Amino acid sequence: MSKKYSEMTKEELLAEQKELKARYDEFKAKNLKLDMSRGKPGAEQLDLSMAVNSVDEYTIDGIDARNYGVLDGIPSCKKMFADLLDVNPENIIVGPSSSLNLMFDYVSQCFTHGAGDKPWCKLDSVKFLCPVPGYDRHFTICEHFGIEMINVPMNDDGPDMDLIEELVEDESVKGMFCVPKYSNPQGITFSDEVVERIAALNPAAKDFRIIWDNAYCVHDLTDDGDRLANIFDLLPRYNNEDMVIEVCSTSKITFPGAGISAIAASDNNISAIKKRLSAQTISYAKMNQLRHVKFFGDADGIRMHMKKHAAILKPKFDVVIKHLDEELGGRGIASWVNPKGGYFISLDVMNGCAKRTGELCSEAGVTLTSVGATYPYGIDENDKNIRIAPSFPPVDELDIAAQLLCICVRLACVEKLLG
Amino acid sequence: MSKKYSEMTKEELLAEQKELKARYDEFKAKNLKLDMSRGKPGAEQLDLSMAVNSVDEYTIDGIDARNYGVLDGIPSCKKMFADLLDVNPENIIVGPSSSLNLMFDYVSQCFTHGAGDKPWCKLDSVKFLCPVPGYDRHFTICEHFGIEMINVPMNDDGPDMDLIEELVEDESVKGMFCVPKYSNPQGITFSDEVVERIAALNPAAKDFRIIWDNAYCVHDLTDDGDRLANIFDLLPRYNNEDMVIEVCSTSKITFPGAGISAIAASDNNISAIKKRLSAQTISYAKMNQLRHVKFFGDADGIRMHMKKHAAILKPKFDVVIKHLDEELGGRGIASWVNPKGGYFISLDVMNGCAKRTGELCSEAGVTLTSVGATYPYGIDENDKNIRIAPSFPPVDELDIAAQLLCICVRLACVEKLLG
Repeated sequence: MSKKYSEMTKEELLAEQKELKARYDEFKAKNLKLDMSRGKPGAEQLDLSMAVNSVDEYTIDGIDARNYGVLDGIPSCKKMFADLLDVNPENIIVGPSSSLNLMFDYVSQCFTHGAGDKPWCKLDSVKFLCPVPGYDRHFTICEHFGIEMINVPMNDDGPDMDLIEELVEDESVKGMFCVPKYSNPQGITFSDEVVERIAALNPAAKDFRIIWDNAYCVHDLTDDGDRLANIFDLLPRYNNEDMVIEVCSTSKITFPGAGISAIAASDNNISAIKKRLSAQTISYAKMNQLRHVKFFGDADGIRMHMKKHAAILKPKFDVVIKHLDEELGGRGIASWVNPKGGYFISLDVMNGCAKRTGELCSEAGVTLTSVGATYPYGIDENDKNIRIAPSFPPVDELDIAAQLLCICVRLACVEKLLG
Repeated sequence: MSKKYSEMTKEELLAEQKELKARYDEFKAKNLKLDMSRGKPGAEQLDLSMAVNSVDEYTIDGIDARNYGVLDGIPSCKKMFADLLDVNPENIIVGPSSSLNLMFDYVSQCFTHGAGDKPWCKLDSVKFLCPVPGYDRHFTICEHFGIEMINVPMNDDGPDMDLIEELVEDESVKGMFCVPKYSNPQGITFSDEVVERIAALNPAAKDFRIIWDNAYCVHDLTDDGDRLANIFDLLPRYNNEDMVIEVCSTSKITFPGAGISAIAASDNNISAIKKRLSAQTISYAKMNQLRHVKFFGDADGIRMHMKKHAAILKPKFDVVIKHLDEELGGRGIASWVNPKGGYFISLDVMNGCAKRTGELCSEAGVTLTSVGATYPYGIDENDKNIRIAPSFPPVDELDIAAQLLCICVRLACVEKLLG
């Protein structure tokens, strides 16, 4: 049984530090170069989808996918995404290779053309709610457009809804980014109650928009993955159909370097987006839509395919969790969630110790996601959150990197306690 | 030798009308369904590039093109476009499947973030100069953003530069769309003098931007195609490096349904665009960039490939020009340019006769580009311009459609003269 650091005497802490330092130096001597920074699929995962590219015939649904036209996506591809997200095909637009692009373009559209009210660029102040810790690229979009970000802490079942219900009474609060299933970085899936409370929101801003970034909608690590309530089933009960814009992509299903994305939204929103799209492009890359439809067949084909990803990813998550349990368990210096899916493990360490942990890791050749990145403006006020991305490195490298990370966490905490 | 309509007596016009009506009815009886409306490549052209898709290995320049990363395009693809447009690779960003998307996004960026000065969305009035006749999708972008469009007539060697030099003295004139080589729809290539005068402009608006849509940069129909001066060579002489944003794409080189596009711009503009892009996406579809590089090898590979397109397209242009010459020549009711490249033939008919020609064509089963579309707001004040798109239909269909078009032009003019 490990002893809590807070209960250690100064002598015990010094002894601990000495022992940890010795282990740390051993790792350092190996001149490691390991990367746990970004949620990139590993090469083995990419190999799973190579047959996507084995297509000779590019006619589908009576359409020559090689030529111009079909703004919102080829019908069979719209159907595949509609089934995946459990909405009607009319409420789907198939997009470019990244859903980030769809989100950015939507926010940009709100700035130039509004979301049913004044263009946001005409307003003095636009604020967004940001569940924290969260996804740095959501924050980057907000920063780019000068949106003021307001932190909302995540609970075990989703963002703090009491706080959200209070904050949306401010008319300048215009929206919120969410990763509702296997949240980035914590891997938390919003509970049915949280989804219902989100659907029932009554924001002062009538053009309040939630970007429902369902990036990990089918990214379970186990057979008993989390189940996310379908918010589009709930919104009509509260006359909130237009409040949510959902996106997803195949970046972590087929290829981050050339997948397809989709947007799901109400009739009104789809119509407003199509109006903009009809000026923005003639059609997104339909040949790639066709390739994906031929490869998967349908939404169930995607779900089956994801089991192959899980088989590769689960051991990677397991090895990290094993070291966290063994090295950090019971010491009262760190907490984490063991997620059933998604791409990350979120590690909270003692306040004031995350940055130092990152430094120690970096000095020993292990790159973490830049500490602080999981908070708006890169500011983690408590300096405690570390995002671990176990997907890219091979298991044997992760085994080393995770051990080293744990040693660094312990070293940082001992340093802190010794003052 | 044909007689000029203006010199015909009323009796002669009536006889002409009767004869034309008989010919028209013959065509009408055939229940045609022919389309000369959009600049779409024909299926035979698309077949030329099918080997683009025969790639098994997606590593290039030491990059796994299947994974995340490389915001501005894989190096060998940047080089290919740089050589094609005769600029440095550092001044290239490889984009998504359409250059329209690049143009829209750039204008959108000017609205939300400006082009070195105030965001355009903060201004009371933003005006663009529009060479006419021009490309309807440029006008659509302007309309979408509420940009006021000012017509600038095209001369034989490009837009009326005297007028442009005068108009840019208005500070609210912020930009101009151009198709400088084989202009859409006239197929006119800007002369060296015009390009030099454009490069030398001294607009009141310091953030004046020219979207140099070089859509037909290598789209010659003959071996002695037009040569366009490289505006980026000229701009520095006038301290105007930042004034031009050039775009091109492979939509009409490989596939409109999944090509790649590129933007060429000054260091300052590339840096401003990359700043936006870094919030908008992680990377565009690199696998498709790789496919194109492997297929072409380099810029010369693209140029060679275009000869195959020319071999297919030239007979299509020829059959249209033949009928224009035979049916409309010498009658004083129409004029046109026989272009050396591009995708269109622009036909100017007697004032007040274009719409009626379109109606007659439509009634007989031939679809033209919506008459008026070549002017901002769809308003061709003289009702005279018709855009012919000969690329898509097979030669035998074009043969019929072009004849019918000529008959319709003549009928419309006779009607008009008979009052």
